[in-house]
Amino acid sequence: MTNNNAPIHRMDQAVALESLSNDRWQGQTSARYANMIGPFGGTTGATLLNAVLSHDELLGEPVSLTVNFTAPVADGHFEVVARPVRTNRNSQHWWVEMVQDEKVVAFATAVTARRRETWESTELPFPQVPQASDLEGFAREGRPSWTRNYDMRFVDGELLGTPNPDEPSLSRVWVRDEPARPLDFVSLSALCDAFFPRIFIRRPKLVPIGTVSLTTYFHADQQQLNEAGSDHVFGSARSNHFGKGFFDQSAEVWSRSGTLLATTHQVVYFKE
Amino acid sequence: MTNNNAPIHRMDQAVALESLSNDRWQGQTSARYANMIGPFGGTTGATLLNAVLSHDELLGEPVSLTVNFTAPVADGHFEVVARPVRTNRNSQHWWVEMVQDEKVVAFATAVTARRRETWESTELPFPQVPQASDLEGFAREGRPSWTRNYDMRFVDGELLGTPNPDEPSLSRVWVRDEPARPLDFVSLSALCDAFFPRIFIRRPKLVPIGTVSLTTYFHADQQQLNEAGSDHVFGSARSNHFGKGFFDQSAEVWSRSGTLLATTHQVVYFKE
Repeated sequence: MTNNNAPIHRMDQAVALESLSNDRWQGQTSARYANMIGPFGGTTGATLLNAVLSHDELLGEPVSLTVNFTAPVADGHFEVVARPVRTNRNSQHWWVEMVQDEKVVAFATAVTARRRETWESTELPFPQVPQASDLEGFAREGRPSWTRNYDMRFVDGELLGTPNPDEPSLSRVWVRDEPARPLDFVSLSALCDAFFPRIFIRRPKLVPIGTVSLTTYFHADQQQLNEAGSDHVFGSARSNHFGKGFFDQSAEVWSRSGTLLATTHQVVYFKE
Repeated sequence: MTNNNAPIHRMDQAVALESLSNDRWQGQTSARYANMIGPFGGTTGATLLNAVLSHDELLGEPVSLTVNFTAPVADGHFEVVARPVRTNRNSQHWWVEMVQDEKVVAFATAVTARRRETWESTELPFPQVPQASDLEGFAREGRPSWTRNYDMRFVDGELLGTPNPDEPSLSRVWVRDEPARPLDFVSLSALCDAFFPRIFIRRPKLVPIGTVSLTTYFHADQQQLNEAGSDHVFGSARSNHFGKGFFDQSAEVWSRSGTLLATTHQVVYFKE
């Protein structure tokens, strides 16, 4: 299935890891995914997940991923260490850390599991919104480099635009990797951090911010990600509360055909 | 402020830790908080948080807590180890683990921070529901022991009751510790796991389940918890998706006067 002549997608370059031992890798930040300061958090988390998925002892597929951003990641080299904390018959719990200058700049915990067919129900309704092809692309001029790796088509709640009157922190947006790339757990985990900080939508005003902790629950298995392919996915993101230096935000990510792929939550530091 | 003649509240007994060194404690499970198998997960997570809050190097108050349940916790003794992974000027990232027989049965990561006054907004509306005093208490006969430590007054979505027709996994419920106890971060973290597994509400049917990972974002500081006092808090819990052996659920916890105290999310394993 591999086309050796195809160029490596920029996402795969950004999360690439070179093995140093069975649970240790080295990598480097990608200028293409640069944020205001350091790399886009989505690629940092995706790199940590990539270490889990590259580990010889991996069991199953990702169910849950929590990434903590402990300090600014410096541009350049880093090491990643991943170890299974506990392996059960059908599930596995992981610890992963990213290290620069012998200090932990980000860490993650993850759960992977063998998924089985069970009773199934999606309670959340799939939103009725215009298709991506009927919407204009997000104007990325003047925005951080990482935004150029996503094709975003906003239904509402555009960055620094006019907030939705009913839910002023809400954004509804179609997103895919740019250039288009088949969805996998790595790219989906990064995309879950591609919804802008809600405070930029809600106020709407740029203030210093930084995600502190990001949790993603994967509802889809690999087969469902294959079905989503390289098409746009639909995301709906909003905040519950801003105050005392932190706000939370939650988002849902759907395939175009209405499969709920992931739900994701984060708590973000802000100033002012 | 301490009344040395007052009996220790059963919650404080359940999460009590005896110091072994500066980052290691021992404790034991509480029969009062027993669940179907092993202890109620809320007290396991609260015990891990208690270790962070007991640590000499603690900075600030809890902002985020993620607890992973890696294996059934056996009734009896355990050890807890907590260490700050990274300490910044105003925030701190923690690793905590609970160990039995040299195996990790649960672990947590947490963020604590010095909170400051900033711009503030609660986007989520405070639900208009009957007061706790106008509702009947939850019938705890035949339910696991831990439920007897909570006074629950359901608006709708009672355990194995008639699902809400609009949102069949939704429960809206007033809860407080039983006997009443002033709210703190420890008891609030436990209470965030006291909403029953959504699958029991949605189907409604008892099936084997187990929380895999539980994340709580604390929006209130200690002063706001003091204001909530020992009164009921209001919780609203629902699920987005059930399938392939796992479901997610999210809940919001409000003080009676309408302060959003915490939002909490979990992913739960289920069978059948």
